[in-house]
Amino acid sequence: MLRMSSLFLRTLREDPVDAEVASHRLLVRAGYIRRAAPGIYTWLPLGLRVLAKVEQVVREEMAAIDAQEVHFPALLPKEPYEATGRWTEYGPNIFRLKDRRENDYLLAPTHEEMFTLLVKDLYSSYKDLPLALYQIQTKYRDEARPRAGLIRGREFIMKDAYSFDVDDAGLEASYERQRGAYQRIFTRLGLEYVIVAATSGAMGGSRSEEFLTPTAIGEDTFVRSPGGYTANVEAVTTPVPESIDLDGLPAAHVEDTPDTPTIETLVAHANATFPRADRPWTGADTLKNVVVALRQPDGTRELLVVGLPGDREVDAKRLEAAVAPAEVEVATDEDLKARPEIVKGYLGPAVLGPNAPLDADGVSTGVRYLLDPRVVPGTRWITGANVAGKHVFDLVAGRDFTADGTVEAAEVRAGDPAPDGSGPLELARGIEIGHIFALGRKYAEALGLKVLDQNGKAVTVTMGSYGIGVSRVLAALAEANHDNAGLVWPAHVAPAHVHVVATGKDAAVFEAAEKIAGELEGRGVEVLYDDRFKVSPGVKFADAELLGVPVLVVVGRGLAEGTVEVRRRAGGEPQHVAVDGASETIAATVAELLEG
Amino acid sequence: MLRMSSLFLRTLREDPVDAEVASHRLLVRAGYIRRAAPGIYTWLPLGLRVLAKVEQVVREEMAAIDAQEVHFPALLPKEPYEATGRWTEYGPNIFRLKDRRENDYLLAPTHEEMFTLLVKDLYSSYKDLPLALYQIQTKYRDEARPRAGLIRGREFIMKDAYSFDVDDAGLEASYERQRGAYQRIFTRLGLEYVIVAATSGAMGGSRSEEFLTPTAIGEDTFVRSPGGYTANVEAVTTPVPESIDLDGLPAAHVEDTPDTPTIETLVAHANATFPRADRPWTGADTLKNVVVALRQPDGTRELLVVGLPGDREVDAKRLEAAVAPAEVEVATDEDLKARPEIVKGYLGPAVLGPNAPLDADGVSTGVRYLLDPRVVPGTRWITGANVAGKHVFDLVAGRDFTADGTVEAAEVRAGDPAPDGSGPLELARGIEIGHIFALGRKYAEALGLKVLDQNGKAVTVTMGSYGIGVSRVLAALAEANHDNAGLVWPAHVAPAHVHVVATGKDAAVFEAAEKIAGELEGRGVEVLYDDRFKVSPGVKFADAELLGVPVLVVVGRGLAEGTVEVRRRAGGEPQHVAVDGASETIAATVAELLEG
Repeated sequence: MLRMSSLFLRTLREDPVDAEVASHRLLVRAGYIRRAAPGIYTWLPLGLRVLAKVEQVVREEMAAIDAQEVHFPALLPKEPYEATGRWTEYGPNIFRLKDRRENDYLLAPTHEEMFTLLVKDLYSSYKDLPLALYQIQTKYRDEARPRAGLIRGREFIMKDAYSFDVDDAGLEASYERQRGAYQRIFTRLGLEYVIVAATSGAMGGSRSEEFLTPTAIGEDTFVRSPGGYTANVEAVTTPVPESIDLDGLPAAHVEDTPDTPTIETLVAHANATFPRADRPWTGADTLKNVVVALRQPDGTRELLVVGLPGDREVDAKRLEAAVAPAEVEVATDEDLKARPEIVKGYLGPAVLGPNAPLDADGVSTGVRYLLDPRVVPGTRWITGANVAGKHVFDLVAGRDFTADGTVEAAEVRAGDPAPDGSGPLELARGIEIGHIFALGRKYAEALGLKVLDQNGKAVTVTMGSYGIGVSRVLAALAEANHDNAGLVWPAHVAPAHVHVVATGKDAAVFEAAEKIAGELEGRGVEVLYDDRFKVSPGVKFADAELLGVPVLVVVGRGLAEGTVEVRRRAGGEPQHVAVDGASETIAATVAELLEG
Repeated sequence: MLRMSSLFLRTLREDPVDAEVASHRLLVRAGYIRRAAPGIYTWLPLGLRVLAKVEQVVREEMAAIDAQEVHFPALLPKEPYEATGRWTEYGPNIFRLKDRRENDYLLAPTHEEMFTLLVKDLYSSYKDLPLALYQIQTKYRDEARPRAGLIRGREFIMKDAYSFDVDDAGLEASYERQRGAYQRIFTRLGLEYVIVAATSGAMGGSRSEEFLTPTAIGEDTFVRSPGGYTANVEAVTTPVPESIDLDGLPAAHVEDTPDTPTIETLVAHANATFPRADRPWTGADTLKNVVVALRQPDGTRELLVVGLPGDREVDAKRLEAAVAPAEVEVATDEDLKARPEIVKGYLGPAVLGPNAPLDADGVSTGVRYLLDPRVVPGTRWITGANVAGKHVFDLVAGRDFTADGTVEAAEVRAGDPAPDGSGPLELARGIEIGHIFALGRKYAEALGLKVLDQNGKAVTVTMGSYGIGVSRVLAALAEANHDNAGLVWPAHVAPAHVHVVATGKDAAVFEAAEKIAGELEGRGVEVLYDDRFKVSPGVKFADAELLGVPVLVVVGRGLAEGTVEVRRRAGGEPQHVAVDGASETIAATVAELLEG
């Protein structure tokens, strides 16, 4: 039994200054976690209890698909990560250190390399496969912007599982098994989820899906269509329109467009000075060229120009996903000074990528230029003429300019068509709680994991990796289960099932409360008992609401009439229950909640 | 049920090349752990199961003394450790790193600072105390010489508990409570232990005791006396003899002692050339002066000379403990060149410490000089005359020379008197499995942890810290429970209770084995079932002996007569048990072992 008189807990009336989201605010205020450093948290007793329950659900569902638990170190040598290229690819996102002998180590953000090497060490035959291993372990990422408490931390708890198969069909089956386990885990946890197509980022691999829990404070944006298409916005592909026949299109012509450095001013000027007969010009008729800088993991930096319809912004996360592992940075004045051909507000294709003049070796002198997939051959654009105050009209893609390629960097908007033709997209936000990857042979090839097949031939193993952010799941649960007064835990993850509050100063009340608490424990119910003697009922009730234990039992004034009050934290009418047999009634309520 | 056909396990017939001790060798060979880097190990499924059982015992006994579980990060900012001086004191023994903003972090070797700050954050009154908190957590030390597998690792699992009290009596009570919990933990684990007085090292504090489990391969040496004195050899103090009246002692005289750079040659020469009337000269009549270098945590280095009776060696660990946090290094030729007064083999007190000439400021020019406590005033010595081939005889301590102080650096020998007069010491070796510290106010003072006492006055809290090397305990259990063929786990920490082996190729045997295994599971017995079909009985038995599950059930030839064979891994006669009812008999055997 947890007793409030001795429990290591202080609830806070004030929100922590750095807390922007409810889960962060409430988990700190209710004494579940405490910040130790940016993005690094300490688990207090109540938080640790909830964490253990989440972990238990994960363990049970992993066991149910025959995944075996192991545990790797967090401190790992550089070499395996160098073999796969990730030592460099992770750039500044991992913590690196040297030991006393000057050997390089890292704090692992994920363990693909180590699992691959372990299986290589122990197994050698197709008969040993399929194999699924997992761990629940502390992971590290040197996030540029740790935020939202446990949601984006630098030290966090992950369940990472890995599958090993001899062929593609095996991987597909392993992937589906993990996917099913994830569905059961989140269902059991009572956490709403959407499975969306995702990009694979630094992980690599052929296919990946994210499990997102929808919430307005989510860092991820995802789309869904009436026909069932779902994807992280980063993974959405733009349906490419048909090319247009170049024959008969008007010639490009440069016009004076003074003081039109923005799309808005340009469209207004075009409509005023060069009106169209059929309809007004809109931003969608303009081709906007956005300059950014890419920093490669090895530290090198280059400029990039993204050309896209002027009615759309560049979505930084989509661009980052498209250019990963490079990071996107703002192009500085310094950057632009080195490129005098870039005239701010009037940049056009003529000086970019393959359209730019060639140097003595026949190589383009232009900044690398990537186009939105909508800019297909035959489309006509108003765009910069590379001279202040001038734009070019009727500049035709595929006739007047080309690019170094296309890029999925434009924002996705509600109403955009789904790439699979399943209707208009709707946008929502969510927290990524799981991510599953069909890795394929990337890691096995880099580290030489082969087994002998049925014919005695060495074949490279194909792998999957499957992560759940365990500490983040706890935050997502708090985010999905709270109100203004505090947390409202689902019974199966709550730090206790019943919160017994004794009110007043009457010794008989405390005796009765103690007795009920003890009886509940005897029935296997987890009890938090507020046995504090000199604390007012108001403070006790406020604490109870903040802590969020699902069933509140108030032992107080009603005792004179032989009753105690039973309330559900989630709401509904309080019940007055006879003291005699109260524990039986309450235990039944708890059982009902645990089954629900 | 664990099935050998799918369990992620490969037993090894060969010892790992780097394994010197049985626990290391067998835990690797039996597939419990696997090396990831020097002193850094991965837990495989069987190892993780044993670890969980050890942790469970620790958790139960911590709960029994009302210690509350929390969990701190491993990655911590420098500042708290700087406030207590330990950022520097740990020298090269901790892993340090910088984050992307160039802030300093460490991988914590122990968490006194963080617990102190947490309690300061949450608590403010004497009414909140006493308080005991603990965690089971991954810790890091950049050991110079990681060795013996889990026994001295660089990433390891610790249970670290901390007590907080308002006064000394409270600390004493908290310390005793933890001490009792440790006794119960090691008793339940079946691990023999000795509690010995210890030095506090970098931890600080007034009193500390170690729990050692006796074993010849232990890194620690401890002493015990017939009267009950026990201490780590580092903590043994030398009984100081009575001083001798200086009056009437003969004057010192320098003698030619050619070719006597060692104690042995010196004693032989003295007996040959200057024989004593009463008895021969021995090493104990000589004063040996040993030059070492000390490296302070801040990197500075200085020479030190230890003067001790010539029949004793300097014990490096005792010296290290005495000069901590400085580390002891060998004095190099370079060092000696800078000190021309040091004549190798003929060094004597005259040029050392306070005996050396003064410089212009009146400060001694001599190397710092510390004496063994036996060198009391009035004792007469043969020692170096600081000229090659010459020694001085009848050099009297307190008359002819002094020193900068005394030091406990001489080896302790069997038969030496216990400091408390409880008789002659005997020496033994052990592995440190626990260490408890009455820290006092060191950390609370450095970090400002105060509470208001009953009179409303702010008083500094007094603390204790209490560690158990959980992963090391597992290794110690393996060390104490093995034979030539493999591990012999006590039932309550074994990865399974019963190892069922089906032998032969008869389908009926596998059916019967499967049935028994299932029935045992139904009775709550943990089963490891060797269901491998094409593996020979010899390999299966060898694996069973290596893995060390306490009860082996062989289903094979006996089945024709309706029996299975039940053997205990620890030895004794095999029993032939009727197949019908076998699971009941076996479950009873297991229950008996678990109770034992």
